[in-house]
Formats: sequence, structure tokens, C-alpha cells
Amino acid sequence: MKKLNKMGKIAVLTSGGDAPGLNACIRAVVRTACYYNLEVIGIKRGYKGLIEKDFIPLSARDVAGILQKGGTILLSSREPRFHEYEYRKLAYENLKSENIEALFVIGGNGTFQAANLLAKEFDIPIIGIPKTIDNDLYGTDYTIGFDTAVNNAVEAVDKIKDTSISHERIFVVEVMGRDSGFLALEVGLATGAEITLIPEYPFPMHHIVESIISSIKKGKRFAIIILAEGVAHAKEFAETLNKHLKPYIDEDIRYTVLGYIQRGGSPTAFDRVIASKFGVFAVEHYLSGNKNFMVAYENGKLTAKPLEISFGKIKKPDLKDYQIANILSS
Amino acid sequence: MKKLNKMGKIAVLTSGGDAPGLNACIRAVVRTACYYNLEVIGIKRGYKGLIEKDFIPLSARDVAGILQKGGTILLSSREPRFHEYEYRKLAYENLKSENIEALFVIGGNGTFQAANLLAKEFDIPIIGIPKTIDNDLYGTDYTIGFDTAVNNAVEAVDKIKDTSISHERIFVVEVMGRDSGFLALEVGLATGAEITLIPEYPFPMHHIVESIISSIKKGKRFAIIILAEGVAHAKEFAETLNKHLKPYIDEDIRYTVLGYIQRGGSPTAFDRVIASKFGVFAVEHYLSGNKNFMVAYENGKLTAKPLEISFGKIKKPDLKDYQIANILSS
Amino acid sequence: MKKLNKMGKIAVLTSGGDAPGLNACIRAVVRTACYYNLEVIGIKRGYKGLIEKDFIPLSARDVAGILQKGGTILLSSREPRFHEYEYRKLAYENLKSENIEALFVIGGNGTFQAANLLAKEFDIPIIGIPKTIDNDLYGTDYTIGFDTAVNNAVEAVDKIKDTSISHERIFVVEVMGRDSGFLALEVGLATGAEITLIPEYPFPMHHIVESIISSIKKGKRFAIIILAEGVAHAKEFAETLNKHLKPYIDEDIRYTVLGYIQRGGSPTAFDRVIASKFGVFAVEHYLSGNKNFMVAYENGKLTAKPLEISFGKIKKPDLKDYQIANILSS
Amino acid sequence: MKKLNKMGKIAVLTSGGDAPGLNACIRAVVRTACYYNLEVIGIKRGYKGLIEKDFIPLSARDVAGILQKGGTILLSSREPRFHEYEYRKLAYENLKSENIEALFVIGGNGTFQAANLLAKEFDIPIIGIPKTIDNDLYGTDYTIGFDTAVNNAVEAVDKIKDTSISHERIFVVEVMGRDSGFLALEVGLATGAEITLIPEYPFPMHHIVESIISSIKKGKRFAIIILAEGVAHAKEFAETLNKHLKPYIDEDIRYTVLGYIQRGGSPTAFDRVIASKFGVFAVEHYLSGNKNFMVAYENGKLTAKPLEISFGKIKKPDLKDYQIANILSS
Repeated sequence: MKKLNKMGKIAVLTSGGDAPGLNACIRAVVRTACYYNLEVIGIKRGYKGLIEKDFIPLSARDVAGILQKGGTILLSSREPRFHEYEYRKLAYENLKSENIEALFVIGGNGTFQAANLLAKEFDIPIIGIPKTIDNDLYGTDYTIGFDTAVNNAVEAVDKIKDTSISHERIFVVEVMGRDSGFLALEVGLATGAEITLIPEYPFPMHHIVESIISSIKKGKRFAIIILAEGVAHAKEFAETLNKHLKPYIDEDIRYTVLGYIQRGGSPTAFDRVIASKFGVFAVEHYLSGNKNFMVAYENGKLTAKPLEISFGKIKKPDLKDYQIANILSS
Repeated sequence: MKKLNKMGKIAVLTSGGDAPGLNACIRAVVRTACYYNLEVIGIKRGYKGLIEKDFIPLSARDVAGILQKGGTILLSSREPRFHEYEYRKLAYENLKSENIEALFVIGGNGTFQAANLLAKEFDIPIIGIPKTIDNDLYGTDYTIGFDTAVNNAVEAVDKIKDTSISHERIFVVEVMGRDSGFLALEVGLATGAEITLIPEYPFPMHHIVESIISSIKKGKRFAIIILAEGVAHAKEFAETLNKHLKPYIDEDIRYTVLGYIQRGGSPTAFDRVIASKFGVFAVEHYLSGNKNFMVAYENGKLTAKPLEISFGKIKKPDLKDYQIANILSS
Repeated sequence: MKKLNKMGKIAVLTSGGDAPGLNACIRAVVRTACYYNLEVIGIKRGYKGLIEKDFIPLSARDVAGILQKGGTILLSSREPRFHEYEYRKLAYENLKSENIEALFVIGGNGTFQAANLLAKEFDIPIIGIPKTIDNDLYGTDYTIGFDTAVNNAVEAVDKIKDTSISHERIFVVEVMGRDSGFLALEVGLATGAEITLIPEYPFPMHHIVESIISSIKKGKRFAIIILAEGVAHAKEFAETLNKHLKPYIDEDIRYTVLGYIQRGGSPTAFDRVIASKFGVFAVEHYLSGNKNFMVAYENGKLTAKPLEISFGKIKKPDLKDYQIANILSS
Repeated sequence: MKKLNKMGKIAVLTSGGDAPGLNACIRAVVRTACYYNLEVIGIKRGYKGLIEKDFIPLSARDVAGILQKGGTILLSSREPRFHEYEYRKLAYENLKSENIEALFVIGGNGTFQAANLLAKEFDIPIIGIPKTIDNDLYGTDYTIGFDTAVNNAVEAVDKIKDTSISHERIFVVEVMGRDSGFLALEVGLATGAEITLIPEYPFPMHHIVESIISSIKKGKRFAIIILAEGVAHAKEFAETLNKHLKPYIDEDIRYTVLGYIQRGGSPTAFDRVIASKFGVFAVEHYLSGNKNFMVAYENGKLTAKPLEISFGKIKKPDLKDYQIANILSS
């Protein structure tokens, strides 16, 4: 790819829930753009800053030292006003007034749907870069943040397992994932959880109970149950299970909700690298003349998909992975 | 200290809540005992194994490779039967039937009180080694597990802080500590929390609210509040605070209960070393002719205290440390 | 896949250099085999145990609690005797005497070549599972241990970077990889190294010198240089570079050889999961009637390749990845 | 302590080798000073910035978000010119020209000796805050950075141990410490090293050899030897040991020099807290009318010592700790 003679100008924002790797991606977008002689504007707090014209110029130096940091230097927020046409018009006018020729949005499904309206209504090219720790975005095998979230959760479960084993207790550990089980399933596989419960492949309570009783009868009195938040709340689930198991256990079932520790922290090597590659690919693919696309990771390779590809679609974990979890927890 | 010619025999157990460093301490007790030609019996599941005579011989080799592991190879449990005289008598008879001459108990206040009854009723020498992640045991400046628990919590809060800053939200993080604020205060100091709430030094809600509003008015829209579990439940606290701050914040206050991740994991270097030193000191001090004592860490040195020293006493965090947290969060 | 009625018997060994995830893979092979009613024999110390018939039966219980552990419970060694026909014959006879019907070898190129001789000479089915932290095995996009090694190295470089920045020094960090640059390149990308040097894409010394001088002239006095061990030794490289840069720097260039810390430690979530999937796939593909194959990861999916596929072949990092490192370090 | 009405002005610098916790200490000095209505000037690059008048004002906000970061925002350097009177005079004049009333130096022995000259020659009050990962400063039981360095090294050795065990090899791991063995001894205790070699308590080569041979004869073929850099270089030591053990081992002894990874990284909770307390104490003790002192940690408490206390003195690790390492490695 050739460097440009004439300077163009792009803008970048982050929107939606936190995901480790956002800064790595911002850095890659900015540095790749600079490399090809594009100017870059950073938009603060996602669509909020777009509406309020909270813009800052970003040079290659401005993104030094952020690759390994959690969070996002551009900040993020929820901005309900963007659902209204007049505010999107304002957003567009803000972009035009600064001669911004394309908008790079690092976000998930909601972010892309909002950006798509802008693309449709005002003909501003949109480039989507997928991030969510839930990895539930249709059209891409991977979204920025997933690997770090999995490892954060795995480190936590490894710790809980120490107590589970030495105190012979059953623990329910609730992991994030909204309506989806990708995160929970990966955590279940990586920690050797006795039981992994995800919304996509229901496992009835009486099977859970039987499985644990059978295990107790063989002398194994501890267990880790990984519970996707889309299945149940840990507290209620633990209480219900406790009632069923009362005659078989000495100690009440404990539960932990891992919560926000899954979203933060320095990104893993994989998230830093994939977020960087997403950023480079996004800029280069745009410069090749494409617009209104989402960067995607498919079959181990980077590619581009129409921005709308994920709308209304549901991505499910591979049934085979779920079966593997069962085979290996035996 | 001289090695013994005549073999003696001691027993060791772990009891109460989990604390990283238990295995390091077991290893030290066993290896020091072996070094001085004592035999060692491990008792499984604390007082439960004492009553049920679940004993295993422990050699120096049996404790290889456990120094860096969380949990306890001797397992732990709660055993209400030990409150009854007849079961303590049974416990004593089990010890005598194996010619065990002293019982080393690694535990906290409850463990020591139970052991003290045994010492009083049956004249079996008891050696207490203090552990609890809460560090709230009177008579010693340190209890095994505290440093690891603090670091576990700090790593978690560091992650949550990423999201707090980049999404400009207020987070309430509940840490363990039962009725005491040692853990919360240390975590607050180590993470630079905006507010740290501990039971020993109450801070009224209206002060909290004013402090945050004043901060928001200066443009700082995020905050971490470290909440000792002895003060309030995170959920209720966050809801109450939310009501007060509603007019000033865009996003609801988030909360996380760190829970059991604080108790597990590989112990820190400090916990490995101090647990080892506690174990060595315990055996050597016993061999010097002492009994019914608790190992203690005082003014940076190991010492022995009467086993009853902590009974009915309360240890409070230093007021100065609390003031430092306030000075530095400004 | 159906479970077997008639019991078969397989053996598994680990061979070659250490790689995090070996235990996860052993666990998966054993548990999957048990699930399908196969018996499993573990062979100690790789080909050494095969020659000396150091065999142990492995049940599903025997591999409990090893998923998250570094190293290999089966131990590993180098065994030059296996190059001789008579010892391979002895190895085969040991397998036959125990009615072992197939041999699963978890290893790299050398391991597979040795196993292939056995397969050719004695018609014992061989199943290869690829592991090496270097990720340089032709025929598969991934080998067990790579992700953990990368993250181990990245954590180390992150620490060194603190000192590099605050003391304004240039550091050379040598990472493993034998003749290949996969590990170094990934580490360079993930740490934002100023310069990454790998054997596949040479970068002449005068370019390195110019690049650093240009950077110093802009006021940036620190730099991290990631050096693949296949390019040069850190000590000699740092000394040479030092001579060239002497007039421009206040402090001598420092160097660190990361060494064995890259090979150990608890595997990352990815290595635990992929090692598990490799193990499940290996057993199931064997049970489907295949033999003398290597499990491979290609385009994001598991597949099987002829055992000989990697022999005499060289896998190179993607030139694009190298270019990305250059674009982003600017 | 009362807040001041009249503003005073102090300066702070960091000097010497890197140590995690410097930023925590800078933050504490600055915020405590601000709390008491003192102005603070930060001096860049230690004595270099003092000579070149590279000063920056530091407010409470300027030190936000640095508590958990390795390195030092004030940078550090070696500055030979400070050995000459004329440059110290220049330094003093720079301080006076900005009405700076006291100089806080965060450093080690060399830093304090340099500062002491200034105090003696120009009557500028000096406050020393001790930091060095080696913990070898006489007059204080603790220096900022030691706990993090120990934990960094311990994490590395834990990883190497995996390979040591599974590949049955002997590893020599060289840790920092200059002429002193504090770091090595603590790492040896915390990792359960088979042998720990420190300069203060020599252990002759033939004893090392006998100890390992005896261990090998009992069937234990791996070992970790922690080698303080003050004893020998890992490479030469491993080669010598190798010659002695050649007949007893299959594989050559491996060695690793941990190097700079010990100096960097986010400080542990303990280092963050102690560095903070050192900073608060330093400012408050100065405001109480004291000068030319070093903050010290003694018997678990903060205190002040004359600045010269450490000059020409040597601090040695406790012999008891060394004996404990031997008892427990048995």
C-alpha cells in the first residue's frame, strides 16, 4: 500500500462496555493512519463526544505507552440522544465541520447499529472494529477483549478452586456474557469446572443435582460450577441447588459473582496483538477504497464484512466445545 | 538448638477459613520437626479428623512441592461437635492412642479457643499458629494469609479502576474482613481509593456524598469506594449512595463483591516466608520446653504469647493509617 | 462417536523441551480415552521410559488437578539411544508386551521424526500432538505452549520497560525461538517494542543504529529491542550496538536474556483449552480409524495431517506481521 | 499536625537504580505536602536535573494515577558531575533561586551521601527516603522496592521450577543484590530452593556438590540453586558445578540470570503502602522541625535516623534466616 500525498482526515471513537485492548486498537488506528499520512481526530466518550464535538487531535506520539493499558484513553459512555435523528445530524455536522472523511468506531453490536444509521442518513463512511468481552458478535470469530476476560476469570476461578478443594465445598462462580455462553464455556474448559452452565445448551437442574450426588458418593466433595449470567443469578441458583443437595453436603454452597474484574486489567498478549492488527487492517482496508464494513476475524484470518452483518443475528458457541467440556470434566 | 536422640511425636492440623500460606506453614512444621527428629502426624479436616481419627504420617518428603500452593493439603472444615466435651475427650484419646505429645493448630481465634479447652481439660500441650486473611487476631501484628489477600484484592481493584476511569463511573468494591477493617484499609491505601470505609472509624453517609459531589464538581467523575464487609453490603450501600448522587451522575453506581478470590491463590513471597518462619519458631519454641502458646509477630520479630491472649480482645487498625488514607486520597 | 464395548489400550508420552499445556493435553488424552472405554498407559520420561518400560496406568482420576499446572506429570528427557534401531525394537516390544495398540506422542519435530521411525519399522500407529513454545512446526498454525510463552515474555518486557522509560536506557531483551522468530515477533508486537529482530527478515545493524539515533534526536532516549535468539546473543549484540551508539547515549545499553521463565508457569486459558481440544481430537480421530497423523490447527480449526508433514519443512512468520510491527513502532 | 498558613516550598527527586514504589512515594510526598499547604517542585533525572535546573511544579492532581506504576515519573539518572563542588554549588543556587526550603531525596546509599554533602556545605535541609530492591541499607529494616523485587523473582523461579521438576534438571538462578544476600535469601526461602548461596554466609563448593549428589542418590534429580550475584556469575558457577556433577547427571546444568525483571512492574501492595507511609512520615517529620534525617523502618515502625547513619556501615541478613532456609530445604 502506498503512502498518501494528500492528507486525509479520519476520526476514531470507543463506545459501549469496557474491554481490554481498546487502547491497543486506538494506537494501531492512529499510528497506521499517521504512517499513511492521514490526520486523526479522537472523539471523547463515544457518541456523546460526537454530539458535543469533544474532539482532540491524535498524533503517533499521543498514543505512546498505551498499548498495555486497560480502559480507553478516549473514554466511553452511553448516549441515548444518539437514537434521535436531530442529534445524529448534529454529529454529522460536527464531523463535516472538521473535514473528517470517515469514522472508525470500536464497539459492539449497539455501537455498529448506531453508526450504521449515520452511514445511511449522511453518507459518512463507517468502519467498525469489533470489541466485547462476551465474544457474541455475529460475523466474526473474535472480538477484542475476550481473551483477557477469559484469563481474568480463569485466574479468579483458580484461586477459588484452592478453597473449594481444601474446604471441600461446592462453589458457583457467575461469569459475564449477557445472553451468551462463550465466556462461561471457555472459562469452564480452562478451569476444568465440574459443571458449566450456558444459555445455549440448557442442562436441567435435576441433572446437575444427580451429577454432583454421584460425585459425592465417589468421595469427591468439592466442585466448581461455572454459571453464565444469562442462565441465572449466582445467589438464587446457589440457594436452589443448596436445597436439593442439603442431605448430601456439610457446608452450604458458596457463590461468587466475578463482575467487573473480567473487564479490566492489562490486555493479554493476544488481545494486544489482535487489537493492533484489527486497527491496521481497518485503516488499510479503508484506504483501499472500502467503506461501511466491519473488521472480522474468520478462520484465523482478518477480513472485512458488511457493517450490517451482525444485525439481528445470533452467534452460538460450538456444540462440540460444550461436549468437550463434559467429556473432560468426567 | 540440639537435635533430639529420642523421637517424640507431634500432630498438626489446619482449621477455619482458608488462607494462603497454610501449606507453607505445614511444610515448615513438618520439616523442622523432622530436622529435630520428631515424628509428625497430620490430622485431616481440622477438629473433624481429630474426632474421627483421620490421621496420616507426614515425612519431609510428603510436604515437598506444597510451599507455593494455596489451600491446605490437610483440608479444613467446621466441626460443631468439638463444642461438646465428649467429643473433645474422644479427640484427646485419639491423640494419646498414637502417643502424640503435642498438637499444633494453624488457625484463628475460634480454632485457638477450641484447642485451649483441650489443653485445659486434658493437659495436652497446644501450639497455636495464627492465620486469617482478616489480620484481626489480637496479640500478633500479623496473621498468615493477610498479605496475599491484600494483593489479590488490589489486583482486582486495579482492574476495576481501569473501567472506573475510562467509563467515568463510581464503583463500590466490597472486601472481606468480618467485623474488622484491616484488609479494607490496606486495600484502600494500596489502590489509592477515593474513599475507604471500615467499621472501626465510621464515616457518615452525608460526608461520603459531599466528598463525591465536591470531586465531581472539580471534573473528576470516577471514584473507587472500598467497603469493608463489616460496614455494609455492597449492593445496599451502592443503592443508597445512588439515591443521594442521582442528580450528579450519568451512570448508576456499580458494585462488586470480591468474595472468595481473596482467600485463594499461590501465597505471596511474604506469606510463604512468614508462614515458614512461624512453623519453624513454633516447633523450636515447643522443643525449648514451652507449651500452650501462640506464635506472634510483634514489632517485626517472632515471639510467643499465651494461647489465651486473644480471647475476648479486639485489635483495631492504627488510626494513623486511616488518616494517611484520607490525606493521600485528596 | 460411539463408546467402545471392547476395551482397547493406548499409551501417551511427552518428549522434548518444556511447554506449558502438556499436563492439560495429557489430561485430555486420558479422559477422552476413558470416556470411550480405552485404557491408557503413561510412559515416563518420553522415549527413555519407552525403552526402559517405565509405564504407569492412568485413570481419569490420576489426571485430576493437573490442567492448570506447568511442566508434565509424565516427565520428559532427551534419549539419544532411540536413534538406534535395537532400542526402537526394544521400545516396540515393550509396547506389544502390554498390548498397547497406539502411541500418542506430545512433542515437536524431533519427537515426531523418532516416532515416525517406529511407525514405519514396526507398524505401531502413532498419533502426534504438536507442542513447542517456538511455534515453528510446519503444518500447523499453532503448537501448545506458544501463547503462554508469549505472555510470560510480555510480562517480563512490560517490567523492563518501566526501567527503560524512567532511566532512559536502551534495553536488548533476548527471547527464545531457536532458529525462528515467531515468539520474538509476537512479543515485539505485544509490547510495542521499538525494534524487533528475527532471523527470517534481517534488519542490518546500520539501519538499527540510524533508527535509534533518529529517535534520540527527537528526544526519546529509551528503547526496547526484542532480539530472537536465532539472530544473535544479547550480550554480543548489546556490546556491538553500544559501540555504534556511544556518542549518542549517556548510559550503556543493558541486556537481559529471558531464558527459562518463558517455558514454565501455569498455562494461559488459551493453552489450556487448545491443549485440551488437541487431546480430545487426537483420541477421537484415532478411534475413527486413522493413524500416523499429527493433530494440526489450521485456519482456526482442528484437523489432521500426515505425521511426516513437517519433516524438512520450514514455517515462517507472516511478512505482514513483521510490517505491522514496523508501522506500529513508529 | 496543623496545616500551615504560610506556604513553604520543598523539592523532591529520585536517584539511583530503579525500584518499584518510587511513584507511590512521590505521590505521598506531594499530596502530604499539599495537604499541609506546602508547594512542591519535582526535579527531573535526580542530581542531573538539580544541576541543570530541570524543575516542574507538582500538584496533588499531577500525581494522580501513578501509585500503581513502576518506574518514576521524575526519571532517574547517574550524574558524576555532582561529585564536584562547583556543581553542588550550582545545585544549591538553583534550589535557592526557587525559594526551595528543603530537598527530599528518594534513593539509596549513594544518593544520601551526595545529598549529605549538600546539607553540610550549603545548609539546605535534606530528607532521605530509602529505596533499593537490595534492602541492604544500614539503619532501616526495609527499603522501598524489596518486596516487589522478591515477588518478581519468586514468580520467575516458580516457572523455572516447573521445568526443573518435569525435565529433572538442576537450575542455577542468579538474582540481584549487589554485594548483599537479602534478596537471594528471601527468594530462596519463598521458593523452597534446594540451595541458596549468599555472600554473607559462604557455603563451599564441595558442600554444594555433596548435597546434590546425596539428593540424586535418594532419587531426586532436580534442584533449584538461588545464587546471589555477589557470590558468582551464574554462567561460570554453573560450568564449574557441572564439571563436579558430570558423572551424576544426564543433562547439563542450566542457568538463568533474572536481571532487570526484578526492578520493574507494578509494586506489590506492601511496597505501595510502605512507600506511601514513608512519604507521609518524611513530610510530617520535616514539618515538625527536623532536618537531615533518613526515614527508617525499624521493628515494624516508622522512625527517623540521622542521614549519615548508613555511611560506611554494612547490614547483614539474619543468620537465623539462613539456617531456616537450610532446615526447610532438607
